[in-house]
Amino acid sequence: MSSEQLEQLKKNLREGPLDIGGPVAETRRMFEAIHADLPVPDDVRLSETRLGAVPALAAEPAGAARDAAILYLHGGAYVVGSSRSARAVVAALAAQAGCRAVAADYRLAPEHPFPAAVGDALAAYRALLDQGIDPGRLALAGDSAGGGLAIATLVAARDEGLPLPAAAAVFSPWADLTLSAGSLISKAGADPALTARSLSTRAADYLGGQDPRTPLASPVFADLTGLPPLLIQAGTAEILLDDAVGLAAAAARADVDVDLQIRAEMPHVWQTFAAFLDEGRQALSAAAAFLASRFD
Amino acid sequence: MSSEQLEQLKKNLREGPLDIGGPVAETRRMFEAIHADLPVPDDVRLSETRLGAVPALAAEPAGAARDAAILYLHGGAYVVGSSRSARAVVAALAAQAGCRAVAADYRLAPEHPFPAAVGDALAAYRALLDQGIDPGRLALAGDSAGGGLAIATLVAARDEGLPLPAAAAVFSPWADLTLSAGSLISKAGADPALTARSLSTRAADYLGGQDPRTPLASPVFADLTGLPPLLIQAGTAEILLDDAVGLAAAAARADVDVDLQIRAEMPHVWQTFAAFLDEGRQALSAAAAFLASRFD
Repeated sequence: MSSEQLEQLKKNLREGPLDIGGPVAETRRMFEAIHADLPVPDDVRLSETRLGAVPALAAEPAGAARDAAILYLHGGAYVVGSSRSARAVVAALAAQAGCRAVAADYRLAPEHPFPAAVGDALAAYRALLDQGIDPGRLALAGDSAGGGLAIATLVAARDEGLPLPAAAAVFSPWADLTLSAGSLISKAGADPALTARSLSTRAADYLGGQDPRTPLASPVFADLTGLPPLLIQAGTAEILLDDAVGLAAAAARADVDVDLQIRAEMPHVWQTFAAFLDEGRQALSAAAAFLASRFD
Repeated sequence: MSSEQLEQLKKNLREGPLDIGGPVAETRRMFEAIHADLPVPDDVRLSETRLGAVPALAAEPAGAARDAAILYLHGGAYVVGSSRSARAVVAALAAQAGCRAVAADYRLAPEHPFPAAVGDALAAYRALLDQGIDPGRLALAGDSAGGGLAIATLVAARDEGLPLPAAAAVFSPWADLTLSAGSLISKAGADPALTARSLSTRAADYLGGQDPRTPLASPVFADLTGLPPLLIQAGTAEILLDDAVGLAAAAARADVDVDLQIRAEMPHVWQTFAAFLDEGRQALSAAAAFLASRFD
């Protein structure tokens, strides 16, 4: 374990301004700023694009397979974040998987509450299908709120009768907006980044008065029957740990193939820091291998 | 998916005599008989041995690393089964991992109730350490009751201050002898092999009146702090599915690295049938890779 890198990261997270529960405009600027300097692999080309009506950022590694793609849904508690704040992790995942990854800028709350994000993510997925990509060569991925959204998008796609992608990989998914999981309390002291209070603020923004148990908002409550193989990664130093476990349990109940990878002492979405954290690189590498092995 | 192989296997399990809840002597004979014809890979040599005072069966693949070993704990609900009934899966795991695997004949209930099995498994582990094998080149593995026992053995070894092995892999572990997990009911119709009633009979035999929540008998209730990386595999067509999920949750709570691999439609310990079931081979291959990658 790269314990010095990890301790430095956790110190930065603890001391840094990552309180996602603050005023919306300021929190959005802060969230972009702390992700602005994360390096993108040299051989990955970034370009702005659209998936249907949804703005997006494509990350294309040199020599990428042309006929496969990963649709990526960024984190930020449904209120902050963008394809730009996610570009380091998206580019690294694309490079490892050897195919294009496209991060969708789904609309954010509170301006656009649930189900706007699900609608946009589904539209982005549909646009990739409309480009003629074989669903067996498509995957979904996402982190934090984007991880929950990726699962919700699969459920929505299934319910609409769309062909489903080959697999999905989610990093530290936020999948239970009731915020009732035990790790919200048991891991509060260990989590250097997130607090239940901030998440509660953002859940209210996203839900706009709707029931937090709504399956497409909190996919731990969804019937996941028929979903493709899922990879779920989470760290033990995060209050959302039990969202990952609960999602795996829901998948298992519904006869879905699921791999849950829990990494000791890792903070929320440590994959973001792959450029300087060995465990981040390892997790992304495992996710890329998982997705690539499920492609037809 | 090798669906024909799988359907045939499930049909055999359903129609076959695998009711582990019957009279002890008869059930032991039946359990040995149904495992007697499973093939062992050609290049794996089997030999009877001892680990301290515990009888054991060693499976040594041609060209195996001499300085590494897997201690295997067989299934059979703590009442039936042996190193012989497990030899196909033990030999296949050894072959895939490229090192010796040794299956211990821990004492069985009802003649020898809890904690006899834990004592014997711990003695067997200690014997491997006494052979001079670096704990960083040792792993534990087991299936069903042997999977729960493997976790209990790690907890007991930690509590005794022994050096812990590099990793452990458990297949369809029976880890909650209270038999209160939801899958006991929700997966009853899907499970072609096990019934809650049979497990209840055998739990009573093993516990001999002791509390089923005793952590070394039901390791889902144990504090797993300090355990090495764990791999847990289970199928969605088995009533013990939630034992696997619960064990992963307990590991995550305790900051233990854990991989949970849930495979759709697989029955209890499908790894046993690796010789003719693709998914069995794949699961064993993943387990072997997991263990080998954790060896020093």
